[in-house]
Amino acid sequence: MEQPSALEGAMMLLMGVFNKYAGTDERKDTLSKAEVKTLVEKEFPHFLQLGDKKEVEAMLMELMSQGDQEVDFCQFMCQVATLTIIGKAIFEQLEACPQ
Amino acid sequence: MEQPSALEGAMMLLMGVFNKYAGTDERKDTLSKAEVKTLVEKEFPHFLQLGDKKEVEAMLMELMSQGDQEVDFCQFMCQVATLTIIGKAIFEQLEACPQ
Repeated sequence: MEQPSALEGAMMLLMGVFNKYAGTDERKDTLSKAEVKTLVEKEFPHFLQLGDKKEVEAMLMELMSQGDQEVDFCQFMCQVATLTIIGKAIFEQLEACPQ
Repeated sequence: MEQPSALEGAMMLLMGVFNKYAGTDERKDTLSKAEVKTLVEKEFPHFLQLGDKKEVEAMLMELMSQGDQEVDFCQFMCQVATLTIIGKAIFEQLEACPQ
């Protein structure tokens, strides 16, 4: 099989991250609240440094779960897309005016 | 700087892919039709093998541009999220019933 492109590689990485954290309980196709918490703690080390860790973590938890008990892959991808858009804007601002 | 996580790495990869293809003309923050075409040809080698190449390419072009002359990062991320959701469903079907 030919090497995946950078874009296909990123897409497969996202599938892999979701499957890894969703797979820790019997419901393999959704993230429970506990799985969302573990994912946030493990997968957003740099986002968590953008402010008060507890606050950013709570915000990411709220964003990722949208108040739902279970987060499916569609919801996960919507939140990842939102965070990527926010992240790009933050990077561009930091580049535009470095402290 | 600490290594990014898999999720953060995928998010940064997506930013990099967009910037690479959006940066080839004077409008660096949007993808023109020509830039979308190059991105589709170069970044979806495995998607293009899922059917008739010309058809899949036309479908991806239509999906990525949504009929717009210019595609911004938000639109790009929406389409990548959509394609990742579709891609995961395809992989799961292929795993469930390999030919």
